[in-house]
Amino acid sequence: MKQLNIGIAGLGNVGSALIQTVEENKNYFLNKTDVSLNIVGISAKTKNKKRNFNISNYAWYDDPREMSKNDQFDVIIELIGEEKGISYEIIELALRNKKHVVTGNKALIANHGKELFELANQYSLALSYEAAVAGGIPVIKTIKNSINLDKINRISGILNGTTNYILTKMQEDNLSFDEVLKIAKEKGFTSDQESKLDIGGYDAAHKLTILSTLCFKSNLNFNNNYIEGISNIKIEDINFAKKLGYKIKLISEACIIENKISNFTSPKLVQIDNPLASVDNALNAINIETVHLQNLFLEGEGAGGKPTASSVLSDLYDISQNEKFDNLGFKIDKLQNYEKYSSENIINSYYLRIMAEDKPGVLSSITNYFSDFNISVKKILQLPENSDVDKPIPIIITTHNVKKEKLSNVINKIESLDFVKEKIILLAIHDN
Amino acid sequence: MKQLNIGIAGLGNVGSALIQTVEENKNYFLNKTDVSLNIVGISAKTKNKKRNFNISNYAWYDDPREMSKNDQFDVIIELIGEEKGISYEIIELALRNKKHVVTGNKALIANHGKELFELANQYSLALSYEAAVAGGIPVIKTIKNSINLDKINRISGILNGTTNYILTKMQEDNLSFDEVLKIAKEKGFTSDQESKLDIGGYDAAHKLTILSTLCFKSNLNFNNNYIEGISNIKIEDINFAKKLGYKIKLISEACIIENKISNFTSPKLVQIDNPLASVDNALNAINIETVHLQNLFLEGEGAGGKPTASSVLSDLYDISQNEKFDNLGFKIDKLQNYEKYSSENIINSYYLRIMAEDKPGVLSSITNYFSDFNISVKKILQLPENSDVDKPIPIIITTHNVKKEKLSNVINKIESLDFVKEKIILLAIHDN
Repeated sequence: MKQLNIGIAGLGNVGSALIQTVEENKNYFLNKTDVSLNIVGISAKTKNKKRNFNISNYAWYDDPREMSKNDQFDVIIELIGEEKGISYEIIELALRNKKHVVTGNKALIANHGKELFELANQYSLALSYEAAVAGGIPVIKTIKNSINLDKINRISGILNGTTNYILTKMQEDNLSFDEVLKIAKEKGFTSDQESKLDIGGYDAAHKLTILSTLCFKSNLNFNNNYIEGISNIKIEDINFAKKLGYKIKLISEACIIENKISNFTSPKLVQIDNPLASVDNALNAINIETVHLQNLFLEGEGAGGKPTASSVLSDLYDISQNEKFDNLGFKIDKLQNYEKYSSENIINSYYLRIMAEDKPGVLSSITNYFSDFNISVKKILQLPENSDVDKPIPIIITTHNVKKEKLSNVINKIESLDFVKEKIILLAIHDN
Repeated sequence: MKQLNIGIAGLGNVGSALIQTVEENKNYFLNKTDVSLNIVGISAKTKNKKRNFNISNYAWYDDPREMSKNDQFDVIIELIGEEKGISYEIIELALRNKKHVVTGNKALIANHGKELFELANQYSLALSYEAAVAGGIPVIKTIKNSINLDKINRISGILNGTTNYILTKMQEDNLSFDEVLKIAKEKGFTSDQESKLDIGGYDAAHKLTILSTLCFKSNLNFNNNYIEGISNIKIEDINFAKKLGYKIKLISEACIIENKISNFTSPKLVQIDNPLASVDNALNAINIETVHLQNLFLEGEGAGGKPTASSVLSDLYDISQNEKFDNLGFKIDKLQNYEKYSSENIINSYYLRIMAEDKPGVLSSITNYFSDFNISVKKILQLPENSDVDKPIPIIITTHNVKKEKLSNVINKIESLDFVKEKIILLAIHDN
């Protein structure tokens, strides 16, 4: 019987759930693997705090780096979540001291993963991060072990639970962004600090960076991302989208176009019959498009203590079973520095909301610009919202596929017209 | 560099796609794994037949058993698909001759898997079967490697593409079962021989048997299944279900109730907002309910050459990487013989269609029986279908949760009433 001596740095939701899970499943794990999971040490910022487990069962470390240096430990689990700082130090020290590492830290992997994977590779160690992307959904392993021999064309998904909750709630209860954000904070779904990363799209982009690396061997480079958050999404647009058969979702997607990397996180209109459209509330989902499988769709709990702890446990299982560790699913020297695909070259269909004066000739004048620029309009929706003729009315236009650059030109023209009263709202439509 | 010498028995859709896939990805695989995939021999019933690869590149075996006995081979891939017979012989011989086996044969694993897994275990060999369940969806590995440390409460899904195609087509085009079956055969989705297994629910039940074993360590025992096919599904019921917010799907589900095993494959009403409801055409999907993950939902191509070949390839990858083979995800001596849970004890909500004379008092007389038996009715739908008073009209009733046994009693009573003109149609409703 082997023993896996574990140190846990960070005792938030995930860390606490992990301790419970490990203790509850100890015998089961032993029975299954002949390996005994043994939590030796724990560390967190504050020692004296109400917790759902007895901290005196474990050695307490005020400084988690001491665990990384201590020969007693076989695996260090980093759940602090700083983008660099102490999180990076713990991991680097652990690897240099020949310890396996499990982490749920997406920001760190997305920004500084490469040097850490190189270190892990150098010492033949595991640096596992199933918990870093989409909580309990085993997407990392699915890509690494099951479809990595297939050619992946695109990966797309809903990777942030908080923003998905906000958009769902806005639609369901007809509330504004600010109103729902307040509820989300009250419910503890997101804190002031986290909400910036969530709402700004950065958290999803961190995860997308990791997925994009696994799928396309693109070097871990957070700067490769185009990121647009959801704070400008208006309830009007959610309602117009609904009328047109779409839901607005924060979609992250990565693909290679003309040998360049395209990593996008932005709010998009998703057709109601697309599986991603029915991923509501805090759920996450990922669709992987490959040559052989066409679409493989995974949906589940994207966050929360227990689901994420379950991913950590599955990483511990792998560490207990293997002697070689293929942390990326391919050799690290295969990582490529892709150029970033220009967002202006993206071809997509779009939704536009134009706020214009309610007077004769406005609509035809606008549509003329589209035909002048040779942009094919799919649908037009003109709904007088009120009887007050002085107030601008919304004109909703959806386009067929068009190069972003071309559309930007038309938008500039139309925005300069005197009967157009506001900045045009532009959202991409997610194709199936 | 290691070499994996492969023999393929069976050159249908999957076998042919596999050969193409292996040849196309040879260098990629080598690069990734340092293992060279080498197809040495092939075997099929008919040698001279138009194929999408050149058979002269490989040694031809009229008798696939010769490959199983030949020391040249490291892995035998069985894709013939007989429930026992030659398929069993090939696998048994291969294992006895210390060769790894990969198979896509669900009927064989469901019926005779145990003795073969024991043999594989005895010789520390791989007996891999990702291709046996849900084509390209990596559900076997997901359960084995990612969520096997979690407690699984229930697994349910759509496991047969042909029946799902038929039900989708019936609903979309308002066609009868027979009409769509004809189309499915013409399109080559199913043959006369296969369609019996598909439509009868047996193919899905084979797959469920395997999933149920992985989830609950229940001994591979096909007799543990309750199976009801889709040939009695009427377009009327599909349309009434739609009016009530449901789609009819062939659902396979397994769970443990009161320490007994419940494996069910039957057509059920699935609420439109359940992810399973939007799994249309030939797609498959699986929902795994666990304590930690709540619901993990996987959807993808459930059949076809390329997706299934991709699963075979991922099994070859595992064989090339590992030295220990955990074929079931747990030790084989943990398999348990569960008693079969009685279907009469099942508690579920139901849909009933009662064809009754269109005269006063009929409805109240029927609903009185429900209240006499203390069965709580959720919804009643009475839609006169025609103006011909002599023809019976459908009365649709949905119930809240009720024990099947109790409902059967009421059904017997109601069917004996003189104004009830046909056998009552009864379908279970899939809860979320």
